[in-house]
Amino acid sequence: MKKAFFLTLLVAYGMAGNTQQNDSLFIRKLADRILTDNGAYTDLYHLTKDVGPRLAGSPGMVKAEEWGRKTMQLLQPDNVWLQECMVPHWVRGGKDRVVIKPANGKQREVDVLALGNSIGTGGKPISAPVLLVNDFDELESRKDEVKGKIVFYNYHFNPTFINTFDAYGDAVKYRGQGPSRAARYGAVGVIIRSMSHGMNNVPHTGATRYDTTLPKIPAVAVGLEDADWLAKQSAQGTPRATLQTNGHFLPDTIGHNVIAELKGSEFPDEFITIGGHLDSWDVCEGAQDDGAGIVQTIEILRAFREMGYTPKHSIRFVLFMNEENGLRGGSKYAAVAKEKGEKHIFALESDEGGFTPRGIGLTGSAEQLQKIASWNKLIASYGASELRGGGGGADIGPLNQLLGTPTANVFPDSQRYFDFHHARNDVFEAVNKRELELGAVNMAILVYLVDQYGL
Amino acid sequence: MKKAFFLTLLVAYGMAGNTQQNDSLFIRKLADRILTDNGAYTDLYHLTKDVGPRLAGSPGMVKAEEWGRKTMQLLQPDNVWLQECMVPHWVRGGKDRVVIKPANGKQREVDVLALGNSIGTGGKPISAPVLLVNDFDELESRKDEVKGKIVFYNYHFNPTFINTFDAYGDAVKYRGQGPSRAARYGAVGVIIRSMSHGMNNVPHTGATRYDTTLPKIPAVAVGLEDADWLAKQSAQGTPRATLQTNGHFLPDTIGHNVIAELKGSEFPDEFITIGGHLDSWDVCEGAQDDGAGIVQTIEILRAFREMGYTPKHSIRFVLFMNEENGLRGGSKYAAVAKEKGEKHIFALESDEGGFTPRGIGLTGSAEQLQKIASWNKLIASYGASELRGGGGGADIGPLNQLLGTPTANVFPDSQRYFDFHHARNDVFEAVNKRELELGAVNMAILVYLVDQYGL
Repeated sequence: MKKAFFLTLLVAYGMAGNTQQNDSLFIRKLADRILTDNGAYTDLYHLTKDVGPRLAGSPGMVKAEEWGRKTMQLLQPDNVWLQECMVPHWVRGGKDRVVIKPANGKQREVDVLALGNSIGTGGKPISAPVLLVNDFDELESRKDEVKGKIVFYNYHFNPTFINTFDAYGDAVKYRGQGPSRAARYGAVGVIIRSMSHGMNNVPHTGATRYDTTLPKIPAVAVGLEDADWLAKQSAQGTPRATLQTNGHFLPDTIGHNVIAELKGSEFPDEFITIGGHLDSWDVCEGAQDDGAGIVQTIEILRAFREMGYTPKHSIRFVLFMNEENGLRGGSKYAAVAKEKGEKHIFALESDEGGFTPRGIGLTGSAEQLQKIASWNKLIASYGASELRGGGGGADIGPLNQLLGTPTANVFPDSQRYFDFHHARNDVFEAVNKRELELGAVNMAILVYLVDQYGL
Repeated sequence: MKKAFFLTLLVAYGMAGNTQQNDSLFIRKLADRILTDNGAYTDLYHLTKDVGPRLAGSPGMVKAEEWGRKTMQLLQPDNVWLQECMVPHWVRGGKDRVVIKPANGKQREVDVLALGNSIGTGGKPISAPVLLVNDFDELESRKDEVKGKIVFYNYHFNPTFINTFDAYGDAVKYRGQGPSRAARYGAVGVIIRSMSHGMNNVPHTGATRYDTTLPKIPAVAVGLEDADWLAKQSAQGTPRATLQTNGHFLPDTIGHNVIAELKGSEFPDEFITIGGHLDSWDVCEGAQDDGAGIVQTIEILRAFREMGYTPKHSIRFVLFMNEENGLRGGSKYAAVAKEKGEKHIFALESDEGGFTPRGIGLTGSAEQLQKIASWNKLIASYGASELRGGGGGADIGPLNQLLGTPTANVFPDSQRYFDFHHARNDVFEAVNKRELELGAVNMAILVYLVDQYGL
């Protein structure tokens, strides 16, 4: 999420009183339906419990695509199809293990998960002294000590950021660049402190990105309690870590975006896209990330269909594939749109969890922001009362880059997201039914207004 | 909570640029301290796990008062004292039981809790046919059928209210008035559907209020799944309920508000009050209701003390007693203030759970609202970005009534509160550390600004 600025939300313009009253009534019905039909929550149950983990390339992915197709087909949109894209096929390959032998004291296994896209230790454990560094500055200042070591990045999620996505933005470079920056100085492995301020010991995985000019070394995330313990041991001498991971890539394989479409009655060739990503990490049910976004997307289709709403513009409901470790689905969707010369007027993504909505973020022009601000009276009382410049989601980023499409998100409260993000506890039970539904309500309202009045 | 209206939050007035910059820096430090010192969360752990349930009159109450006194004394305010008040002493007296025998089918025990202040069945069970009514209108239209029955109010928490406190305000009359309204027509007992849209079967208790001109009959709240089951059985014939409860009152006893004070440097005789209520229902740890408000109150004292902040006005940190079933503490506090002719310029209460703050509610004049609006730039980015007319809390209500003191709350997101309210699952683990802390941050900012600039 980009640095935010807050607009004062003022006066509706450009809409006659009657129109606004009709909108207000329609919006109330839309909200009531979503808050009472149990659709999103029931879908989430099936996606998380029946389908389960669904990393790109995995059998779970295929199951999820089929589930998505069937679930949307049942709602009888004008069209449902699978859009093929090649996806990377990373597999964890077994249990990730790290055992620490402190300088003084008994050895202990700590709870770790190999980072996504990381390579394993080659079928046998590696063992090396641990070098704790608190950040990249310390890595640079101690680069002569790195050779032959397992570097432990003990960079803390900063609790003084109010928006937790700012803390994530601040810390995630250690997951993305940490392994290669340590490899540059001869490290043989990397342990990173999990990107979370959760109050437990679950490790949080997520994709790393190797610098292809440097050796690829194994890398794991460690739970916060174990990270604190390891830091304490490191202060008392040099611990030794024995690390075994098994990650590797199989050949790229075929995945799909799952797309449903309602044809526009006035502007059938102008498209609005709503979506989330269907893939999840392999270690969890992917309920907040991004089951929530998927079932909110489907719920809006359900509400529009059941209310008999015929949109003016064509609306696409897109379950994107491979956001987590490749973004192939989002890239493909935009590339095809560009190839076909499609006009995409707006795209909305939900990928920050199914928490209570707080506002709208938009990557667009000042005029477009002002237009959304003019709808404040219609949407604020449902939750999305704030407005930020800068918004969207990873999967719809390519639409903005290739076609200049304005992209938005209905941003939810961020406080609990990183308790679950990429971790085993991201399960159905982590999602609150009403919070999930309110997210769908606010997304539906925004899409309705864009469809009615354009952007 | 009163019906809300949203003010447009515009332009700071009446403060020079420098002053606002100094405030901004102080506020940042205040927030950083609260977000990093773990004080509120640690206190909550002790209050919920070491003290536990603490209904007025109970041994837990005495333990809680002593805990509150010691915890605040450690922070070395200018003064800490216990303010005595007589409190009601209702006891549950044993396990509440309801067994349902459907017209056709096997009997089954359902999960119930006697309503607070309700009387028991006199040492032995009562047994009677169940009459389901969906609301008071149906009770009135079927009043001739009520005699000798156990009335089951199956009134649903309305999910279409966006703010769950509106759903509570809509439903709670069945808990408050339901027993006496049924007794008027000869009912022998009452079962009410719990006031919640939680996704489980825990029953939610809470105080009932008998009409003293009518017979007092036993009354329980039933969990939502069991309520649905009982409704289903009722549709197929008349079930019979066997009900045993043991509630009764012991003589009123001595309780206390626990009060800490920081003396004002410029206006020592003008008071600002911050508080929550120390009592909880007997069946739970009272973490959201209202352990959160208690530890937020103490955390603000801690932050002010540790930062060496000397307030201009005298600030009282008040742990009120007996909000749940009598409001004796809040009434006493205001009565004493009036007796002494104290000038109370502002009171703030936290009693809606330790969830992410969303805004400020104020019961005060338009000028006072405008003054708070003028601080929006200083507080909005910490969470409390909205402003509502109408705000406060039950315990500070008497201050407003007796002395005309403006009262406020920093209102949190309401979606999860009634998942836990007055139920066994209102435990420490129901509270998110960051959400709790952010509540304290926003309360602290508001108190600081009122102290600096008056209201």
